[in-house]
Amino acid sequence: MASKTIGIALLGCGTVGGGVVNILAQQRSLLRQRTGIDFVLRHVAVRSREDYPPQADKLPMTTDANAAIDDPATDVVIELIGGTGAAAALVRRALEAGKAVVTANKALLAVRGRELLALARKNNTVIAFEASAGGGIPIIEALKQGLVANRIDALLGIVNGTCNFILSQMTQNGWSYAQALAEAQKLGFAEANPAMDVEGKDSAQKLVILGSIAFNAQIDEKDVHCEGIDKLDAQDINFASELGYVIKLLAIGERVGDHLALRVHPALIHHKELLAQVNGSFNAISVYGHALGHALWYGRGAGRMPTASAVVSDLVGLGLGTTQLAFQQLNILWDQTPPAQMLAFDKLCSRYYLRLQAMDQPGVLAQVTTILGEAGISLSAIRQHEAHTPDSVPVVITTHRASEGAMRHALQRIGQLSTITAQPVCLRIIDQPKEFANG
Amino acid sequence: MASKTIGIALLGCGTVGGGVVNILAQQRSLLRQRTGIDFVLRHVAVRSREDYPPQADKLPMTTDANAAIDDPATDVVIELIGGTGAAAALVRRALEAGKAVVTANKALLAVRGRELLALARKNNTVIAFEASAGGGIPIIEALKQGLVANRIDALLGIVNGTCNFILSQMTQNGWSYAQALAEAQKLGFAEANPAMDVEGKDSAQKLVILGSIAFNAQIDEKDVHCEGIDKLDAQDINFASELGYVIKLLAIGERVGDHLALRVHPALIHHKELLAQVNGSFNAISVYGHALGHALWYGRGAGRMPTASAVVSDLVGLGLGTTQLAFQQLNILWDQTPPAQMLAFDKLCSRYYLRLQAMDQPGVLAQVTTILGEAGISLSAIRQHEAHTPDSVPVVITTHRASEGAMRHALQRIGQLSTITAQPVCLRIIDQPKEFANG
Repeated sequence: MASKTIGIALLGCGTVGGGVVNILAQQRSLLRQRTGIDFVLRHVAVRSREDYPPQADKLPMTTDANAAIDDPATDVVIELIGGTGAAAALVRRALEAGKAVVTANKALLAVRGRELLALARKNNTVIAFEASAGGGIPIIEALKQGLVANRIDALLGIVNGTCNFILSQMTQNGWSYAQALAEAQKLGFAEANPAMDVEGKDSAQKLVILGSIAFNAQIDEKDVHCEGIDKLDAQDINFASELGYVIKLLAIGERVGDHLALRVHPALIHHKELLAQVNGSFNAISVYGHALGHALWYGRGAGRMPTASAVVSDLVGLGLGTTQLAFQQLNILWDQTPPAQMLAFDKLCSRYYLRLQAMDQPGVLAQVTTILGEAGISLSAIRQHEAHTPDSVPVVITTHRASEGAMRHALQRIGQLSTITAQPVCLRIIDQPKEFANG
Repeated sequence: MASKTIGIALLGCGTVGGGVVNILAQQRSLLRQRTGIDFVLRHVAVRSREDYPPQADKLPMTTDANAAIDDPATDVVIELIGGTGAAAALVRRALEAGKAVVTANKALLAVRGRELLALARKNNTVIAFEASAGGGIPIIEALKQGLVANRIDALLGIVNGTCNFILSQMTQNGWSYAQALAEAQKLGFAEANPAMDVEGKDSAQKLVILGSIAFNAQIDEKDVHCEGIDKLDAQDINFASELGYVIKLLAIGERVGDHLALRVHPALIHHKELLAQVNGSFNAISVYGHALGHALWYGRGAGRMPTASAVVSDLVGLGLGTTQLAFQQLNILWDQTPPAQMLAFDKLCSRYYLRLQAMDQPGVLAQVTTILGEAGISLSAIRQHEAHTPDSVPVVITTHRASEGAMRHALQRIGQLSTITAQPVCLRIIDQPKEFANG
C-alpha cells in the first residue's frame, strides 16, 4: 500500500519526542492509509543512556546523534532537544548533509533562524517548524499559505500556556502570583526554573517566528519589547475585573504606517473578547488580514501529544513534498525578506490602566490629573478604592490612547509626588483592532 | 521577478467574484513578491451582459464560459456561479480539459463532489475548495494536512453566518425570528429567499464537506439530520439564557464507536464555551483530534473579501503545485474513502431542553415526569414559569443524556396528555466533548 518510505532520525526523546514516537507507532497504518507513505523511525538519539525513555527497548536508541543524522537511510531529522547549543550544531549538520529538518525549537529559530533557513536553501533542503509556535495549532501553515492573499495588519496571541495557566488561576481563584506559580509547577505546567516563560521571553521568541512570517520581515528578538507576568499583583487582576477586563500575557505585532511594533506584556482585554475567554494552558492567536478580516486560532500550545501532532504534520508535508515546493518558491521567510522597520517604542500608542497608591488627603488627584493633562493624556475613568493601609488608598485610572513616551514621562513625574507612596503600576489596555481598518 | 504565469478564467462575477478580481488587481505585486507567480485574469465569464460588474470595462469580460475554459492560456478555472446546474457542466468541462478548478460551491461539492473529485483524478488535475466551507477560514487545508496525524473524534461548527446573525440578534435584542430575519435581509446578511440558510441546508452541505475530510468517509447529504432555526421561538432563547445557555445553529459530526453521527440543529451550548461567544456573521469550527485535543478556528464564514481570500489561497496552492501534490497523494477525499457507517438517528444521545405549555392545575408535572421516567430519561432541572396566558404555564425541563428514540417516544406521549395545551418544544443541549476521551 505504501508507495514510499521516509526514514526518520529523532533527536531528543523527552515529552514531545515521546509523543512523536507514540503517533508514529500507534498511527502508522492511519498515516500510511492517508498518505501512501511509511514513516519509519530509524534512530532515536539521546545524550546518554540515562536519558533513555521507558520504552527504549522497543526503539532504535542511540547516543550518537551524528551517526543518526549521517545514516543514508535517514531522510528527515526531527530536532526536539531544544535550546541553541547542541541543537544548533546538529541541525546545521543535518542541513549540510541535505537532510530535511523538523524542529519545535523556538529559541533556535528566533536566535539563529535566518542563518539556518539560508543554510537549508543553500543545501537544497528545508526546515519545517509548525510546532515551534502555537504547539498543535496549525498557525504557521495558515500564515504561510492560507492567508497568502492578505496583507496582515495585526497579530495578537496568547502563546505561552504556562503564563496563561498562572493568570487563569490568579483570576479564577483570587490567588497571588506565587501561589499560582506553585500550583502550575505542581501540575507540570511550569518548570522548576520558570524564567523563560514568566518573563515573557518564550512568548517573544514565538512572536519573532509568527511576526516574521505574518509581516514578511526579519525580526530580531531584541525588536520585541518584553515584559513578563512575574511582577503582576493580584489586586490589579481584581481591579481590572471590576472594570470589565481580564489580564492576559499578549504577544502583539502590528503595522503602524510603514513600521512594525512588536511587544509582549500583560494586557487588559475586555472580558467579552474571545482572547479573554482563553483559559488554562490553551493558546490562541488572533490575526487581522486586509481581506480575511479577523480570524482566530485556538488550541493546545504545548504538551506531549498536541505538539507531536504538529511535528507529524510537518513530517507528512515533507513526505508528500509539498513543504519543499512551498519552501523553494515562497519568499516569505526571514532569510529572504527585508529587515523590519521598527516603530520606536516611545511612539507606540495604547490605552492604559494605572494604579497609584495615594495618601488619603485632599489635592492628590488634582496633582495626578494635572500631570497627565500636561502630558496630553486624557482620562477615561477613575476609581478610588477603600483604603487597604491607613492613610493610603489605591486609585485606579484608565486613560484614552496615549504614547508610551508620554506615559513614561508622566509616570516619572507622578512617582516623584510626595503624596504617592509607592511606585505606580502601569498596564496597557489592548482593544481589538478594527477589521478592515486600513483598506 | 515572476518566474511563471498562471492564467485564470473566472466564472461568475458576483459578490465573491468581485472580491477575487479586487485581490488579483490590488495585491498582484504582493502575490508576485511572495510566490514568484504572476496571476493573470484571462477571462471573466458571466451569463449575459446584464450581469457585467461595475468595473467591466477594465476586465476581460465574456459571456462565453466554454471558450474561456477552453482557451489554452487558461490554467485555472475559478467557479463562483453557485448551484448544481450550469456550474456542474462548466466544472466538468474544465476538468475534462485537464484544467485545475477552484470553487466555493458547497452545494456542488456536497451533491456531486464524489463524481467531480474522481473526474479530476481521471484527468490528472485537481479541484480545490477552501472557500466552500468556513469562508475565509483555512479549515479545509487544516483538516487535510495540519491535522493529518489525528483521528478526529468530533467536529462542531457554526458554519452559517446568516443564521448566526439572526440568532445573535434574537439573543441580544430579544427580537422574534421574523424581526431578526427582516434585519438580516435589510443588512444583506440574508437573501430574499432565506430557505437554504435558515432551514439548515447550507450548514448540512458544509458538514458533508468538512465531515467527509475529517472522518475520511463518503457522506451523503441525506446522512445529515437537519433542522433549521425558522421555527425557533424567542421565548426559548430567553429560557435558555436563564439556564446559562446560548442557542446556536450547530453542524455536528461525531464518531460514536465505529459509526458516524451527523446533524444540523439549533442547540443550547453553555455560555462559557467559546462557540457561545461567536456572534454576528462570524463562523467557528471546533475540532477534537486524538492527539491535538480541542482546537477551534474562528473567522468570517462569508462575504466578499474573506471568501476571496480563501479562493486566492487555493490559486496560490495550485500555482506552487502543492495542491496538486497533496491531491494526488492524500487518500482522504471522499472519492477515495469508504461510505460512512451512519449511526441510526434514534440511537444518538444528547441532553435535552423541553418546554411544555401545561394547564395550571395539580398533577400535570407528575404525569410528565412519569412518562419521562418510563422512557428512562432522568431530569436534570425543572422550572415552572409565570403564566403568560390564563390557565396555562410554560414548564421548562432539562434532562440528562437520553437517546433520540427514547425522547421522541416520550414526546409523543406527553403531547397526547390532555393537560398539555401545545406541541412540546424539544431542543438539544450540546456539551463540549471531552478532550482525549477515546485515546
